[in-house]
Amino acid sequence: MTIIRDVVVTPVAFRDPPLLNAAGVHQPYALRSVIQVVCDDGVVGLGETYGDDSVLARLRAIAPTLVGRSVFDLNGIRATVEAVVSGVAARDPDRLTGEASQSRAVLSAYAPFEVACLDAQGKALGVRVVDLLGGPARDTVPFAAYLFYKWGGHPGEPPDAFGPALDPDGVVAQARAMVERYGFRSIKLKGGVFPPEQEVTAIRALRKAFPDHPLRLDPNAAWTVETSRWVAAELDGVLEYLEDPTPGIAGMADVARTTRVPLATNMCVVAFEHLPEAVKRDAIDVLLCDHHYWGGLRLCQALATMCQTFGIGLSMHSNTHLGISLAAMVHLAAATPALAYACDTHYPWTVDDVVQPGALRFVDGSVPVPEGPGLGVELDHDALAHLHDTYLRCGIRRRDDAGYMRTVRPDFAPPRGSW
Amino acid sequence: MTIIRDVVVTPVAFRDPPLLNAAGVHQPYALRSVIQVVCDDGVVGLGETYGDDSVLARLRAIAPTLVGRSVFDLNGIRATVEAVVSGVAARDPDRLTGEASQSRAVLSAYAPFEVACLDAQGKALGVRVVDLLGGPARDTVPFAAYLFYKWGGHPGEPPDAFGPALDPDGVVAQARAMVERYGFRSIKLKGGVFPPEQEVTAIRALRKAFPDHPLRLDPNAAWTVETSRWVAAELDGVLEYLEDPTPGIAGMADVARTTRVPLATNMCVVAFEHLPEAVKRDAIDVLLCDHHYWGGLRLCQALATMCQTFGIGLSMHSNTHLGISLAAMVHLAAATPALAYACDTHYPWTVDDVVQPGALRFVDGSVPVPEGPGLGVELDHDALAHLHDTYLRCGIRRRDDAGYMRTVRPDFAPPRGSW
Repeated sequence: MTIIRDVVVTPVAFRDPPLLNAAGVHQPYALRSVIQVVCDDGVVGLGETYGDDSVLARLRAIAPTLVGRSVFDLNGIRATVEAVVSGVAARDPDRLTGEASQSRAVLSAYAPFEVACLDAQGKALGVRVVDLLGGPARDTVPFAAYLFYKWGGHPGEPPDAFGPALDPDGVVAQARAMVERYGFRSIKLKGGVFPPEQEVTAIRALRKAFPDHPLRLDPNAAWTVETSRWVAAELDGVLEYLEDPTPGIAGMADVARTTRVPLATNMCVVAFEHLPEAVKRDAIDVLLCDHHYWGGLRLCQALATMCQTFGIGLSMHSNTHLGISLAAMVHLAAATPALAYACDTHYPWTVDDVVQPGALRFVDGSVPVPEGPGLGVELDHDALAHLHDTYLRCGIRRRDDAGYMRTVRPDFAPPRGSW
Repeated sequence: MTIIRDVVVTPVAFRDPPLLNAAGVHQPYALRSVIQVVCDDGVVGLGETYGDDSVLARLRAIAPTLVGRSVFDLNGIRATVEAVVSGVAARDPDRLTGEASQSRAVLSAYAPFEVACLDAQGKALGVRVVDLLGGPARDTVPFAAYLFYKWGGHPGEPPDAFGPALDPDGVVAQARAMVERYGFRSIKLKGGVFPPEQEVTAIRALRKAFPDHPLRLDPNAAWTVETSRWVAAELDGVLEYLEDPTPGIAGMADVARTTRVPLATNMCVVAFEHLPEAVKRDAIDVLLCDHHYWGGLRLCQALATMCQTFGIGLSMHSNTHLGISLAAMVHLAAATPALAYACDTHYPWTVDDVVQPGALRFVDGSVPVPEGPGLGVELDHDALAHLHDTYLRCGIRRRDDAGYMRTVRPDFAPPRGSW
């Protein structure tokens, strides 16, 4: 029955360009944790999640408690994770993905182990994760070009390969490069960086350059309700959806009442307990799911049924990630018919990886479901060792976009809900 | 990948005692459809559902469209079922399980094929269905004694082995026999048969005889809101929950506002599209899921997550059924931690079966999860042939409790919402 013999948690760090957002700017290295669930029959299941110290401590506390369990015993593993995590105080709210809570801490800690166990199940049984999740509703998963305002390079370093994007022209140039290289058919701009007027101008420039691409704007709750209403009015008919213009379910509901532009969130509804209020207030039109904090692939599928039931559209959120997470996102999206929007991914911004090349590729803006059993990706052990070494050397132990921004702009304060 | 080579739909009929309910009385034979999904690798997956003509026609229309598909392609099979069923008008509302709808017709038609495919997946992979559903949160599934007012035997026939139950004493005697034989630790009385005062008296008699057993009463929406409130007041502190006292979400909400007794339903919320109104009106405390009309085992698990999210307890409904359905119910309940109430089952009333004996048994009121791969039950082909022959000879083609009751009481009319 594929019993877990060992669980290895490896923190890694990898180069990340200076992408700007409402919380600040991406640090030179992004952190992730890579999970290997090593089984008695030789199967190794892979998972990936955040790499911050607080997350890592939790993953390491959970790891030894899973030894001796079947990889099919997901209910038991979830209960174990709950027992380990309970009592540990929920960490501070994440500036980009919203409120902390005990249930969210549990589901975040459980998710990478669920993915690794599903990968191990598939590898042991000779079937793909997408088949364990109900089979492919689509064979290839559309993603959106994820545009960022960015500096040309990290301070004190030469410009990176992506170049700067600090105005509408820069954004359009970045979009052209992304669309040309990957074939994306939807475009999302991370906003909350410049005054809202400039970001509206950038979206208009994108519309002109890409008349047929659905467009999204995500200022990560940087704006007031009033500003949100103004932007929504300006971009009515232009945006596919407006993502988290302002903080909180009540604020989103205030904006929703006065606009026809669909409002999306990955900040005010980030745990199951947030749904009743969002439904009651009719605050959102689209929910961005993310298996990393919604408790894994199966619970994201339950969330999809819930969204269909309550008339909420479903899209997919992304943080900076590597190939294991991309594979998991693709299997999930392929097996979830309700996921009708192109998904987010930071993957094009990442030049390093821990998986062997070849299994993951973009074709016309979409990623075909990997064909191997399980997730269909295998670890590149040399790359893992190298990125773990980078982790040990880089000195970064938690994501801190604001702190890094303040090394350049000492007076920086995230404009949460105030712009 | 376990490709479907043939799908065999076999209607069966089996003896059913004259159990009384608000719709009338059970006919001498109950109908079910048995589904065999025959695969190219020799695996045969089993499913079971209703056997009425209208259902059978739908199942038979679907069956040939599944040939050539993988048993892992549940999303594809669901889409196919939707295509076949769409355009076929939803049948009349079921008097005992509520409103008809197009989505319900689709999910009802899909469910037995989903179960059969999951059984085939498990048999092909060598794992139990419970393992495909997340692993056992419990190894044995508690059921409730399901008491019925009943005649001593069908008209014109000698008394059956169960004997009559037409007053509180008869109900208590039936409960003693059930509890002694099966070890049930919860008790449910099907009401809506006698004047509400007598049914309240019967519950009081059960409480006296079984001081520690949780008790439930289910009049199948026979009562007015006023009567429901009176019964709830009378039985406050006595009932674990009161099931469908009155018809409709609005009526249930009216009752809920004035009682502390938890209200349960398998009649006013029987499809996903009913949940938003029930949530909005705060109409129910407990939902009885039933994989036969909620679209199979996986969607019942999604429903479980939804109920947890919106603070609704989860129990399980049953119609008259055979061993394939019991096995499916047990695997589902075992893999669904939120299913915290003892489940309903009519199984003790059924003396025939289509599965080989030995895999299913009651121990202290609970059914241990069958151990074999898939559902863990195998067809008894002789029994199937015999019960199919009974189907061909019995002359019954749809369930009609009211029509059968009128052969004895020509003036009978179901007291829906009027008592």
